[in-house]
Amino acid sequence: MTSYSCSEILSGRAPADTPVTVRGWVRTRRDSKAGLSFVHVSDGSSFHPVQVVAPAALANYASEVQRLTAGCAVEATGTIVPSPAKGQPFEMQATELKVIGWVDDPDTYPIQPKPHTMEFLREVAHLRPRTNVIGAMTRVRNTLAQAIHRFFHENGFLWIHTPIITASDAEGAGELFRVSTLDLANLPRTPDGKVDFSKDFFGKESYLTVSGQLNVETYCMALSKVYTFGPTFRAENSNTSRHLAEFWMIEPEIAFADLAQDATLAEQLLKYILKATLDERADDMAFFEERIEKGVIAKLQGIVDKPFVRMDYTEAIRILEASKQKFEYPVQWGTDLQSEHERYLAEKHVGGPVILMNYPKEIKAFYMRMNDDGKTVAAMDVLAPGIGEIIGGSQREERLEVLDRRIVESGLDPAAYGWYRDLRRYGTVPHAGFGLGFERTVAYVTGLSNVRDVIAFPRTPGSARF
Amino acid sequence: MTSYSCSEILSGRAPADTPVTVRGWVRTRRDSKAGLSFVHVSDGSSFHPVQVVAPAALANYASEVQRLTAGCAVEATGTIVPSPAKGQPFEMQATELKVIGWVDDPDTYPIQPKPHTMEFLREVAHLRPRTNVIGAMTRVRNTLAQAIHRFFHENGFLWIHTPIITASDAEGAGELFRVSTLDLANLPRTPDGKVDFSKDFFGKESYLTVSGQLNVETYCMALSKVYTFGPTFRAENSNTSRHLAEFWMIEPEIAFADLAQDATLAEQLLKYILKATLDERADDMAFFEERIEKGVIAKLQGIVDKPFVRMDYTEAIRILEASKQKFEYPVQWGTDLQSEHERYLAEKHVGGPVILMNYPKEIKAFYMRMNDDGKTVAAMDVLAPGIGEIIGGSQREERLEVLDRRIVESGLDPAAYGWYRDLRRYGTVPHAGFGLGFERTVAYVTGLSNVRDVIAFPRTPGSARF
Repeated sequence: MTSYSCSEILSGRAPADTPVTVRGWVRTRRDSKAGLSFVHVSDGSSFHPVQVVAPAALANYASEVQRLTAGCAVEATGTIVPSPAKGQPFEMQATELKVIGWVDDPDTYPIQPKPHTMEFLREVAHLRPRTNVIGAMTRVRNTLAQAIHRFFHENGFLWIHTPIITASDAEGAGELFRVSTLDLANLPRTPDGKVDFSKDFFGKESYLTVSGQLNVETYCMALSKVYTFGPTFRAENSNTSRHLAEFWMIEPEIAFADLAQDATLAEQLLKYILKATLDERADDMAFFEERIEKGVIAKLQGIVDKPFVRMDYTEAIRILEASKQKFEYPVQWGTDLQSEHERYLAEKHVGGPVILMNYPKEIKAFYMRMNDDGKTVAAMDVLAPGIGEIIGGSQREERLEVLDRRIVESGLDPAAYGWYRDLRRYGTVPHAGFGLGFERTVAYVTGLSNVRDVIAFPRTPGSARF
Repeated sequence: MTSYSCSEILSGRAPADTPVTVRGWVRTRRDSKAGLSFVHVSDGSSFHPVQVVAPAALANYASEVQRLTAGCAVEATGTIVPSPAKGQPFEMQATELKVIGWVDDPDTYPIQPKPHTMEFLREVAHLRPRTNVIGAMTRVRNTLAQAIHRFFHENGFLWIHTPIITASDAEGAGELFRVSTLDLANLPRTPDGKVDFSKDFFGKESYLTVSGQLNVETYCMALSKVYTFGPTFRAENSNTSRHLAEFWMIEPEIAFADLAQDATLAEQLLKYILKATLDERADDMAFFEERIEKGVIAKLQGIVDKPFVRMDYTEAIRILEASKQKFEYPVQWGTDLQSEHERYLAEKHVGGPVILMNYPKEIKAFYMRMNDDGKTVAAMDVLAPGIGEIIGGSQREERLEVLDRRIVESGLDPAAYGWYRDLRRYGTVPHAGFGLGFERTVAYVTGLSNVRDVIAFPRTPGSARF
């Protein structure tokens, strides 16, 4: 018997003239007085399960079918017919319903067919993929990730796997995780009593990367269009709803490009991946719209449809100062914008995405290109309704003498940037790039505001599991 | 002026009736006595550079064009015409040739237009993307990675980002990298003098993952077809030509599947990604064929064309024992196969890829499904000519009582596998998966036998750079 996925059956891609098999896990079972059971079977391939209609005539009807509970694994064989039930185009009239795996003690099985709090689901992370919400999030996350790779591939970019373990700290900032194989109970020492890192695995102090940007610039300066899509790490604020200690980041880098082209790339990427999600995961997005964030589909559609407004930081400050809005944080030229300011600009002032450009150099990183005014750098942030900053990027400083001045001004040591400086000595060109946080994007798209609900395994305080 | 990539120009996708622009870096410059210079410009979009023909009539001919050296960044504008030169269908007759970035001190610029040893290139990792060999490798690596995602996406798999920092050790084996934010100079202690890991970032001892498999099984048991593609780490043998401390791994996992279906998936994946590389990167593969490994294209084509032979481990041992071949390592039932044995089977005995199945349980991991003979487990290795094992996988033990017995037999503690055991308590189903090492695959496909030459940044002993 050929087997079909729920997605194939529900979209009419399974044959109607011959019996087929579907395999999955029971979501619910309802017994009808007419001597039938309706068993909803899900295999994760779509938001909706397939309704399997099991007649009492099945040999194992009383012994097994009527004992099925949520989470049992089954294999159902039968004919696919149009469904009279609302919300499902097809159902299966079963001629056989085999139980593959039972649920031990169904009364204590954590994933019951009822709503669970997100807090509770974080505590049963190994079982939560079986819920509607985490299943839908996982499919949307996959669609976003695949669309990101597809966008770059179609546009001639190369995916570069920059190092995860690194000896350098990209921005000279951020708390780092140390990576080591030294025996902490018996640390090797130098003659003056310090920890002897020459005995460590890489012969020097090593950390988890906070960004692949500086590394990927070396590829950009030879292959023109490149990007990273990999994990990055920050040892700070890990237990807030907006920050993860471990998160994936997408960092494209383009050669022979200025800030305007960088902004165009950011706009194209966002539109492309949001459109792919709306097109390919309508079933899951309908669920998020109904249960998680009313209006989320219109929010995303607005980004796909509207041209992004571009505005200088200086202009944005004028608008905020003139707004008469009561902000928690005061705002003036030179201050970093807070979420409330960014959201005011996107939601109230523009009513759509805004790309802010040319920020004061004091609040941006040393590698961003100095503008002719001597006060601002060619940085940009993409602000989106409902979240604020979703992308941050810049044109990079390609002039060696200016870069050196900025390194020193930022309190860093030019000697530590030898290879980065070399890129400016040998065939330097204008180049630009940006960073898109992957989990924050998934959270934004699904409306799941806590980033711990969009990762495979949340670290739950007190849990020894993950 | 619209700009085009080298790839577009060389494949005839740039217009011939209007001037276009190409931007990139000079590979070579040759001045002809006829008062012309031939400047080869590469932007990394294809193996071959575009030949820019610069006439002496250009205003900057003497002042700039004739001073161009390898590595200079240029922007050339002109008409695309059919090329009389061998090996290139088109070239550009330049009307303008702007220099964007010079090379400081061309005599000491490390990437000269001549062959470099791979050892030397490892020492200038930030500049080596500018060479033919690393450029070609990077494009092939990208093609393989994109093909992997495309294969899974087209087949209904979901990409799962399993945790990088983890408290569990997937196989109870392998040297781990510790991840910590503790101050090594001032370690917190418990009352009995031990290091107090409750003060560490995650409140317990944490490590870099060695595999996402056990984690991804939790998604497989809800969403049926899933895979990981992410970095994994082993703190051992890091400086050999075949092992990396940090490498990317692809680990699919399929529900309702046995070992035979696992083997079929492995065969389909390998054929798909190798075919994509041969189809899409013919230019780069021709280079690897000519300069790196004579016969590499036929090697890959053989894998694409031939059905994989399936053979039991026990049968393979009989063949090896009967072979009268002189092996460095003796072989008998129960021993793990060495590369020399695997290659004999694939290259000499079969003359193509072989999938060995059903290995002695003693040489395989605890989670592999026990066969009815009580002696072997449902494990498989895909052996390929020229390398030996390229994929290792298994059907997983889905029966809780058998799993528990194997955990104990392997000297592990069932209590540490609570969430993994839960998957067998709640709707367990037969499932299977495998692992494909990404960098080893890139090395195999390009013929670059040292894995340090297929990663973005090799760690060179003594180098403080990366």
